[in-house]
Amino acid sequence: MERDLAVVLLSSGMDSAVCASIAKKNYRLAFLHVQYGQKSAEKELECFQKLCEFFNPEKVLIAEAPFLKKIGGSSLVSEELPIPEEEEVGIPSTYVPFRNGIFLSIAASWAEAIGAKKIFIGVNQVDFSGYPDCRDSFIKAFNQAIKEGTKPETQIEIEAPLLYLSKKEIVRLGVKLGTPFELTWSCYKNTEVACGRCASCRLRLQAFKEAGIKDPLSYQDK
Amino acid sequence: MERDLAVVLLSSGMDSAVCASIAKKNYRLAFLHVQYGQKSAEKELECFQKLCEFFNPEKVLIAEAPFLKKIGGSSLVSEELPIPEEEEVGIPSTYVPFRNGIFLSIAASWAEAIGAKKIFIGVNQVDFSGYPDCRDSFIKAFNQAIKEGTKPETQIEIEAPLLYLSKKEIVRLGVKLGTPFELTWSCYKNTEVACGRCASCRLRLQAFKEAGIKDPLSYQDK
Repeated sequence: MERDLAVVLLSSGMDSAVCASIAKKNYRLAFLHVQYGQKSAEKELECFQKLCEFFNPEKVLIAEAPFLKKIGGSSLVSEELPIPEEEEVGIPSTYVPFRNGIFLSIAASWAEAIGAKKIFIGVNQVDFSGYPDCRDSFIKAFNQAIKEGTKPETQIEIEAPLLYLSKKEIVRLGVKLGTPFELTWSCYKNTEVACGRCASCRLRLQAFKEAGIKDPLSYQDK
Repeated sequence: MERDLAVVLLSSGMDSAVCASIAKKNYRLAFLHVQYGQKSAEKELECFQKLCEFFNPEKVLIAEAPFLKKIGGSSLVSEELPIPEEEEVGIPSTYVPFRNGIFLSIAASWAEAIGAKKIFIGVNQVDFSGYPDCRDSFIKAFNQAIKEGTKPETQIEIEAPLLYLSKKEIVRLGVKLGTPFELTWSCYKNTEVACGRCASCRLRLQAFKEAGIKDPLSYQDK
């Protein structure tokens, strides 16, 4: 029997790349990458294309969502707000309002159009950055919204396999599954070499350190 | 006390224009229009700008969502699928997968960024076209997703005031509230004059006829 198709939301970060490795075990792959004017857009796209060469998905969609930059309100997209290099209190300035809602909507639309049965998203509520749209309760509510807002015969379910893993466990799982971490990009900036200082770099460095595994990426100041 | 801000999803069709008139009674207005490669995009934008002149909203966002045309699967966006001029059985070919999910996500993101408390959407499940994302159960589920996926202090609620009205009642309500129907556009096509034959034109013509009110728009073949 032919395997079902799964849409994988792939930012090119380490979490979504591990998600792709998990999805690959049981599904045919459809990779979705969103360009929304994030500061690291160019670098992410470059890594996305390398990850496509590696995983060879059956379908690829690069979705442009320029309205998120217009909406602003986040240091990830707004030129006037620099990416912080220190830990922030509460919800960080890198939070993009309801971003995962937008990503999951695009994924649900595409999944319905191509007949995919799953949407993989690499959200994580353990070592997460305090984003409200990375929690289990959000994923559950969105699953229900997809069920109610698509055709009766459409069966799409969100899979968030990293939800309860620590960052360290995600690294170890990725190594076990052969995730090509050398092709991923986690840094919030668009520099040639990852900055090593933004929240995303810090989480990643910490994760590899705790896992006792060498991060194949290079960092500034290292 | 200053009134709260409300995001109004405004396609420029008659339903969303009546929604704007309803929102205006109690809220400061933020108009959101989505251009997604729909065949009537140009005409809708022209009408949206006229509606902005009429309502004079405090904020305006024109969001470009070109991925919906890439996703395809609907006669509203796909060049190879003509807009049907006869009644269709089941879910019509004009259905754009999970479109209202995408629209509501963009609206929720913007609402959170600008501090709006409501999102008005002109969905209607009585004389609707059979779209799953126009039902009360979908709106309820999406409300929950917004609640879970935004900051704890964010309070955004979807208002769908036309949900249980017939098309005839929507026309009458619009007339009562002074909705400028002459500035709206319902036709799925991009012709200079509305076609009068697509499902959207047929629903509108029927609505005005049943309401006993003259539609200020001109139609081909009339």
